[in-house]
Amino acid sequence: MKEILIIGAGRSTLSLITYLQHYSEKADWKIVVADQSLELAQKRAGNHPRTRAIALDVTDDMKRTSAISGADLVISMLPAHMHIPVARDCIALRKHMVTASYISKEMQELDERAKEAGVVMINEIGVDPGIDHLSAMRVLDKIREEGGKMLIFESFTGGLVAPESDDNPWNYKFSWNPRNVVLAGAGGAVKFIQEGQYKYIPYHQLFRRTELVNIEGYGRFEGYANRDSLKYRDVYGLKDIPTIYRGTFRRPGFCRAWDVFVKLGMTDDSYVLEDSEDMTYRQFTNTFLAYNPNDSVELKLMHYLSIPQDSELMDKLSWIGLFDDVKIGLKKATPAQVLQHILEQKWTLKEDDKDMIVMYHKFGYEKEGKQKMIESSMVTLGQNSEQTAMARTVGLPVGIATRLILKGTINTPGVQIPITKEIYEPMLAELEEHGICFNEREISYQGY
Amino acid sequence: MKEILIIGAGRSTLSLITYLQHYSEKADWKIVVADQSLELAQKRAGNHPRTRAIALDVTDDMKRTSAISGADLVISMLPAHMHIPVARDCIALRKHMVTASYISKEMQELDERAKEAGVVMINEIGVDPGIDHLSAMRVLDKIREEGGKMLIFESFTGGLVAPESDDNPWNYKFSWNPRNVVLAGAGGAVKFIQEGQYKYIPYHQLFRRTELVNIEGYGRFEGYANRDSLKYRDVYGLKDIPTIYRGTFRRPGFCRAWDVFVKLGMTDDSYVLEDSEDMTYRQFTNTFLAYNPNDSVELKLMHYLSIPQDSELMDKLSWIGLFDDVKIGLKKATPAQVLQHILEQKWTLKEDDKDMIVMYHKFGYEKEGKQKMIESSMVTLGQNSEQTAMARTVGLPVGIATRLILKGTINTPGVQIPITKEIYEPMLAELEEHGICFNEREISYQGY
Repeated sequence: MKEILIIGAGRSTLSLITYLQHYSEKADWKIVVADQSLELAQKRAGNHPRTRAIALDVTDDMKRTSAISGADLVISMLPAHMHIPVARDCIALRKHMVTASYISKEMQELDERAKEAGVVMINEIGVDPGIDHLSAMRVLDKIREEGGKMLIFESFTGGLVAPESDDNPWNYKFSWNPRNVVLAGAGGAVKFIQEGQYKYIPYHQLFRRTELVNIEGYGRFEGYANRDSLKYRDVYGLKDIPTIYRGTFRRPGFCRAWDVFVKLGMTDDSYVLEDSEDMTYRQFTNTFLAYNPNDSVELKLMHYLSIPQDSELMDKLSWIGLFDDVKIGLKKATPAQVLQHILEQKWTLKEDDKDMIVMYHKFGYEKEGKQKMIESSMVTLGQNSEQTAMARTVGLPVGIATRLILKGTINTPGVQIPITKEIYEPMLAELEEHGICFNEREISYQGY
Repeated sequence: MKEILIIGAGRSTLSLITYLQHYSEKADWKIVVADQSLELAQKRAGNHPRTRAIALDVTDDMKRTSAISGADLVISMLPAHMHIPVARDCIALRKHMVTASYISKEMQELDERAKEAGVVMINEIGVDPGIDHLSAMRVLDKIREEGGKMLIFESFTGGLVAPESDDNPWNYKFSWNPRNVVLAGAGGAVKFIQEGQYKYIPYHQLFRRTELVNIEGYGRFEGYANRDSLKYRDVYGLKDIPTIYRGTFRRPGFCRAWDVFVKLGMTDDSYVLEDSEDMTYRQFTNTFLAYNPNDSVELKLMHYLSIPQDSELMDKLSWIGLFDDVKIGLKKATPAQVLQHILEQKWTLKEDDKDMIVMYHKFGYEKEGKQKMIESSMVTLGQNSEQTAMARTVGLPVGIATRLILKGTINTPGVQIPITKEIYEPMLAELEEHGICFNEREISYQGY
């Protein structure tokens, strides 16, 4: 009997635990769900004979080490910065480990020790990062095996609202940590390369430099660039590729409206507003506009950012509540925290709302003197506000990777991300069984 | 005989040393000029009987302490972050200290120990901060002594080029550390209060929110906001003032053009450009614009930022060299470093060029039921590119404060800035003798 320890019982563990429980009898596993909150762990564990819930404070070294020592594999669903002590224990105690987070510098530094200990440590195995790696590498490897030379790689992922639950002018609802959505892109300048020319976009222009993509059956999406596309040249073995661009999908018109928040300064998380608690949404908006007692907040904003009164953009801003006389009620809040609070009033999924994950890759290459292009897309919908596509596309690949490690299919030790055939082939095959399928097709080549 | 130790022999020590040397015979002072470069120290010391130059590495604890132990007063003209070890020595060895830098948190924390040691430590005694404190506090104290209640305080300083040396479309040349000019405002959101309403401006909008001021005999200036005006409510005892705004002067049109650098992302100092060495100015500009092989860099930029072709703004950008096919030649440079390099080719003072310091305060207040307003302005020109107004307005107040401390006129111990009558009265009187005079006059009240 093998024991799987899941640390952290947040939203995205829902599909993960269901998946593991499904196989637990046949594979003879015991599952331990550990969380700071015993109640949450119990809720996730459910009434399942092979699953046990425990309370665990991961910052308590003794208790953490003791919990890990009983397991054969540890899944850390903790926030990214909390993985390291768990990872150190896993190496010391020779336990495999799986996370859905980006590999941090500290995690990467454990690679050698993980190899020495013979421990498999797979990271970036959620949806993005995760399924994007798997699906992109399958096509990239195929093109290169057949002698193609890569010219263009573009990749977009979006966590959106399903068309049938889309009932607001932004065509957007939160299906993931709202704070990350509010701060998206704020970390620094965006970097990519296009036709051999390096391009940089400062944060405050990011949402004005979008690209439109059509996905059959789902209509148009707009993509804004993710922070550093350049590092994926190394990750994907695309060192000399002239064009590489990774981005995030929203529905058309979203970015132009989001740009208003950025231009006003509402996404700033670096300082605390004076009197944020007693301020109204309307006063919050006004605080970023020039003083003028005779003009309305609406007019000042429209004039400042050249927004026509009769525009869909202005509809979006009014609908979201920027001009409402509603009290914020948050003490010592940053602009970003206030904005998140305002957005959450409108963008929270209703109980029966379905979310949607959209992923799209474009591969341009040259083979035998001809320029060719392949696009690969995947769309999957959630069931309701609990059973979201987001939670499923994060939880499922984590679960599949766990099973494949315990089975020995994935057995190369070290700190890694899922870009090898050993990993992506069985994983994509199993994801397909769960309805997460990529539609790959050749299209006519388009350069720039 | 008293010894004055000057640590750091940069540009702004020129007027300072001349001033101290002038009084050295009468006051019986010895002056020691210390710098990492003995050559520079010797150059500044000149051939003066009471002045000695020494080489000093301030990071060498033994040598620094030994140099300070021989002095009665230490003037630190080092970069702000290097004052602290000097300050600690001054307290331990009971020596007075003078700096022209903003008080850092670390410096402020030494206050109690400085008081216990009976040591006077005056900071912020250059031009801005420095002369602005002196001149503002004189008017503020007078208004309050006469029973006035402050309503508005605005204050601007600009380091510019004198009208007679102004021969470029930006009406600007560097008279101070160019790096600080390039990074001005980039530290975070601007904060101020206007008619009781808090206002915040994000960096990327800062240069579009300017205010125009006319100064008799010198024409119009535009001011953009300095980072945190709010903290001056405490500093100047203006706790409940409804409007406080501090800013920097440029000539009209400068900020709108500088905004182009900000919008493009050229002032970003947080990452290194790929291939910066071999890039041309033109390619540098293009790297911030969308890829399109058919359009010129000029057209792409004009379209991106809605700049008319036949505008003075476009003239400024062309003149400064943004579209020139000139190699940058800087290895691993950040955008901000490249921009500074481009600007330095055009904005460096020629040998006979004169710079200009402009300072302006506006005080609105209520007295006996009437609203009143006073403005106070000062303009002073440099003599040439060595003997600048900037160096003189920094060096002179440092010299005067030094003399007044050694004379015992300024004798309150502790870490402080020059806002008390004990300091500003004798200092402003002596600055006037050196031609640095404030023109104070009542004007008709203007609110917002």
